[in-house]
Amino acid sequence: MQPAQDELDPTRAIAELASHLDDEDATTNARALAEIFQNLEPDDLALALESLPLEKRLAVWQQIPQDEQLDVLVAMRGEARLLLLRQLSQEELHELFDEIDSEDLIELAETVPDAVVDMALGRMDEQQRKYFEMAQQFPEESVGRWLNHDILMVSQNTRVADALRMLRREAPDYTEVLYLVDRTGRWAGCTRINRLLSAQPHQNVAELKEEDYPSLLADDDMYEAAEEVERSSYIALPVLSKDGVLLGRLDVGTAMDLLREQAENQLMASAGLAEDADLFAPVKRSAQTRAVWLGINLITAFMASWFIGLFEATIQEVVALAVLMPVVASMGGIAGSQTLTLIVRGLALGQISAANFNALLLKELRVGALNGVLWALVIGIVAAVWFDSVLLGLVIGAAIVANICAAAASGVLIPVVLDKLKLDPALSGSVILTTVTDVIGFVAFLGLGTLILV
Amino acid sequence: MQPAQDELDPTRAIAELASHLDDEDATTNARALAEIFQNLEPDDLALALESLPLEKRLAVWQQIPQDEQLDVLVAMRGEARLLLLRQLSQEELHELFDEIDSEDLIELAETVPDAVVDMALGRMDEQQRKYFEMAQQFPEESVGRWLNHDILMVSQNTRVADALRMLRREAPDYTEVLYLVDRTGRWAGCTRINRLLSAQPHQNVAELKEEDYPSLLADDDMYEAAEEVERSSYIALPVLSKDGVLLGRLDVGTAMDLLREQAENQLMASAGLAEDADLFAPVKRSAQTRAVWLGINLITAFMASWFIGLFEATIQEVVALAVLMPVVASMGGIAGSQTLTLIVRGLALGQISAANFNALLLKELRVGALNGVLWALVIGIVAAVWFDSVLLGLVIGAAIVANICAAAASGVLIPVVLDKLKLDPALSGSVILTTVTDVIGFVAFLGLGTLILV
Repeated sequence: MQPAQDELDPTRAIAELASHLDDEDATTNARALAEIFQNLEPDDLALALESLPLEKRLAVWQQIPQDEQLDVLVAMRGEARLLLLRQLSQEELHELFDEIDSEDLIELAETVPDAVVDMALGRMDEQQRKYFEMAQQFPEESVGRWLNHDILMVSQNTRVADALRMLRREAPDYTEVLYLVDRTGRWAGCTRINRLLSAQPHQNVAELKEEDYPSLLADDDMYEAAEEVERSSYIALPVLSKDGVLLGRLDVGTAMDLLREQAENQLMASAGLAEDADLFAPVKRSAQTRAVWLGINLITAFMASWFIGLFEATIQEVVALAVLMPVVASMGGIAGSQTLTLIVRGLALGQISAANFNALLLKELRVGALNGVLWALVIGIVAAVWFDSVLLGLVIGAAIVANICAAAASGVLIPVVLDKLKLDPALSGSVILTTVTDVIGFVAFLGLGTLILV
Repeated sequence: MQPAQDELDPTRAIAELASHLDDEDATTNARALAEIFQNLEPDDLALALESLPLEKRLAVWQQIPQDEQLDVLVAMRGEARLLLLRQLSQEELHELFDEIDSEDLIELAETVPDAVVDMALGRMDEQQRKYFEMAQQFPEESVGRWLNHDILMVSQNTRVADALRMLRREAPDYTEVLYLVDRTGRWAGCTRINRLLSAQPHQNVAELKEEDYPSLLADDDMYEAAEEVERSSYIALPVLSKDGVLLGRLDVGTAMDLLREQAENQLMASAGLAEDADLFAPVKRSAQTRAVWLGINLITAFMASWFIGLFEATIQEVVALAVLMPVVASMGGIAGSQTLTLIVRGLALGQISAANFNALLLKELRVGALNGVLWALVIGIVAAVWFDSVLLGLVIGAAIVANICAAAASGVLIPVVLDKLKLDPALSGSVILTTVTDVIGFVAFLGLGTLILV
């Protein structure tokens, strides 16, 4: 038996794809692609499509078997998906959405134009449309939107023999537990299916139920809920309405998708990019989205310049100050971003509260002071030797200590304040921090220079 | 039935913990802690412990029921775990490791001193020690280290009735599939347990097996394997030796832990921090680890300064150049980091190869050129008005275009080259990039200034 994992590697698949795309012979091309596609899961295919330049995507897409196209589309990132959909004809869209279910449409609805969502809704069966409308009633980032409805509910009074019979008949995709409900549909606990196998046929399923089985509320934040699924040892957690009615479950697959999305979001946000930014988005579109971030940074850069401008006369007299300015700013920026990153992770993990804030601030200030003094010595000596001026060494040393300590305090305060204001500290934290460390660094260095060196 | 999710929230638990720690009355204290702990999973307890200042951790740790301590320790991040272990006595360690299994020890062995690992090995039972030694034979970041051995293997010739009897007797934790093996232990496929329920008792389990069930090799990279588990629709994938012998499985829980570790690693590495850095590591220890990164950045900052120093005479004549320097450097740095971040994500997803490299570079250069020209206009006009000099506006505009284009090219090239050299682009990419954009920015701006303005 040959392990199949080699053929699943998307990087290799992409390289093969690309080489076949250069082929002149269209028939070999199509046949070769079909062969590669057979060995790829929809997620791999989505990754592979995203890695192709825009103009090649449609051709490859059309080689994907029709019954897999929707899964691949759902697995793609938002921007890539939108760009592909724009290239499809109305007819192709009609066929694509022919058997779409509620969960897939919810995923798509985030990025796809309303007209397309309406078209898909029109082609959906009654039950799925009901699920979709129910999901839409929950807040945007809540668990209620990501419910899995494929769930085997039984009355808590069911006998083991009957439960086994239902299991055989329904044959649900996942088989870890039965979900028990009371007469009003309220969740009453879960029974592991392997316990059913060794139980007596006349026993009641409720007698076998697990103790302290955790559950989620449909209104819970989806990322926090995903982390709860991850931390729990179960492969899905039941999701309840406010009244305790069992609505569905959040499974580990969806939870992983949500957590990966969140992690990507953090990474991308730190550079002012959209979480779903496409590798090959059209040039104008990319330039536009990035321009916003550049503009915000320009304002902060001009602010720093304005502060430098206050010391024009000093710089003219002691040019060494202009030469060394980047050192002061950069050391503050780096030290601050180290603290900021640690705090952003702590906030994401729910580890930072009023209870430990003071201790944290104090500790970061101490670390800052220690590193500030250490590097002040090094930089002071280098500057003094380079420009043959002990006073210049003292000025830059003092500025470094001040800036690194200020950076440590800002690194704690800025993300915590942003978080309190319900703003994402991963997104705007570093711009604000850099502005603060730039301004403090320049003013401390040039200000001290004016007082001592001029 | 009350949903239990409120009590699982680690942030709340931490706040409660902390308030009880300030209590004077030690008995109430212990009782209150015990009550909170009852409602927390080991992962939550680990998060809560990590969020406490160092000096409070031992006291809280000692209130955790002994049979849960090991699980909590395993769930903690490396540095926090190490710092806690150092505070425990030999006796406490002995008790802690009394029933440790292979998987837990492998997790611990990454951060714990060898003497402690040896002690734990001495207390381990035969079978677990064998698993541990087997795991150690695989490369450090391979799947072989993270095998789950709790797996129900049956011969492929087993009848359904016998398989069901084994299931009842063994009652494994997970019940999605049976793993079939041939007489030499080679993996022969998987059969879903829910298919057994509806099959005839005399049928052979091999007749019911799933088609194209994927598998992993023990030598595979653990992060790539974790992504395969995530992308597959199964809750675990079988792991095979090179000869196809079934060794164990990689389950979705372990896969999620690995992927979260990787995401954290990326976030922390971008600030030169260790992935497992503790929120409350001792000041000296923190200062030391961060000093390395500050030192590296200092070298690059001095390099930038040295280039500025080449233009001392120019700056003395046109001080406006010193005032505007940060604008040129900052715009290049931001534009470059946007490209870098996009490419780092693409590399992590395996989306970048020789096949699309050229197209990617071209696209980023185009985006850079467009944004370069746009912001050159804005900045040029502001500078010209501010310092009342059209020539200065032209100089800074040209420098901006040059620096943003160079930044785009570097943002693609630097991470790809680092990746080829097997270095982590998330770790060193941004330092190298900033150095390049600083130097190019300063040289272009001050150089053009020297040519045109002096």
